[in-house]
Amino acid sequence: MPQGKPAVVPDDGLTTRQRRHRPLVIVHTGEMKGKSTAAFGLALRGWSQGWSIGVFQFVKSAKWKVGEEAALRRLGRLHEETGEGGAVEWNKMGEGWSWVRKKGTEEDHAAAALEGWREIGRRLRDERHGLYILDEFNYPMHWGWVDVDEVISTLRDRPGRQHVVITGRHAPDALVDAADLVVNMTKVKHPMDAGQKGQRGIEW
Amino acid sequence: MPQGKPAVVPDDGLTTRQRRHRPLVIVHTGEMKGKSTAAFGLALRGWSQGWSIGVFQFVKSAKWKVGEEAALRRLGRLHEETGEGGAVEWNKMGEGWSWVRKKGTEEDHAAAALEGWREIGRRLRDERHGLYILDEFNYPMHWGWVDVDEVISTLRDRPGRQHVVITGRHAPDALVDAADLVVNMTKVKHPMDAGQKGQRGIEW
Repeated sequence: MPQGKPAVVPDDGLTTRQRRHRPLVIVHTGEMKGKSTAAFGLALRGWSQGWSIGVFQFVKSAKWKVGEEAALRRLGRLHEETGEGGAVEWNKMGEGWSWVRKKGTEEDHAAAALEGWREIGRRLRDERHGLYILDEFNYPMHWGWVDVDEVISTLRDRPGRQHVVITGRHAPDALVDAADLVVNMTKVKHPMDAGQKGQRGIEW
Repeated sequence: MPQGKPAVVPDDGLTTRQRRHRPLVIVHTGEMKGKSTAAFGLALRGWSQGWSIGVFQFVKSAKWKVGEEAALRRLGRLHEETGEGGAVEWNKMGEGWSWVRKKGTEEDHAAAALEGWREIGRRLRDERHGLYILDEFNYPMHWGWVDVDEVISTLRDRPGRQHVVITGRHAPDALVDAADLVVNMTKVKHPMDAGQKGQRGIEW
């Protein structure tokens, strides 16, 4: 709630304004839907602010989530054509990035994920984007493909005003400790429980 | 997960395909961020499917959430101009709709919310939209301004293929029972706890 009052005013030497504008590391985790969609909802806010949006999809099969990709890419083209909003750059495994040169072994996927993360690290140091969405990035950390401590130190040392959203189940404890905002999407009820499978427009 | 297997196959006389395409009532509740942003992420998927998106904001002060409004409205104008994606119609208290003729008393707000809900009911009967986002609509039900049983019966009897997403804290139990998919956004950590107030691009 924007009108909320902070629970504490920390003794950190910052003014309220400086503290307000500190860039955030946000984690969306938990078993339920909403982790990625909430990240893409934030992308709409960032786009409207004119921020460069960098999306990095760490999913095995990037054929899903085509709906948000098409819409956000379209907003990115609008920016190129008219200057409205911000730029949108969409990177996913198996396309553009060199992540997946050949399909197959877990070693390939692990190396590809690490390479993807290293690219993100370079961009953070170069202040390339205003908002980074690392979609499903909790998995490669959870599986040990990408070192969590390296991620945390890179995020901690990033310059300027760069917000980072990381989604996926199994957020590592150390990442949760290091993040500013962590949401757990918990299940109350899912259509799958009633025998209904995913459908277009809702799941992708 | 689109590739998931249903836990049960119900004896409902439907084929898997028919069951898959049943329209959903989705509820995003809980104390944490992500309820509205996840709904707007779904709007991106719906827009890409060419669905008409109807957004109805039941918030006292509709000056917030301007970022997603600007971006989704822009996608709606794109649809008008080029035929891409779906239509976007954005309705909020204090603008367009007759909800808030005069600011002031709780009675005014209650009457305005009820009037807004009745308009949504008419649109559902007319099959006006493919996706309805009833943003913060749990509050007027929680406060008793809108009758939950009326909402549930209207949703249950809606014709065609119309998905409905309802957001806000304090989702009524009866609505949770009636919904197909319910997510609780629970707090693990919020910047407010560390004295940081909301900021542009993140909260709005």
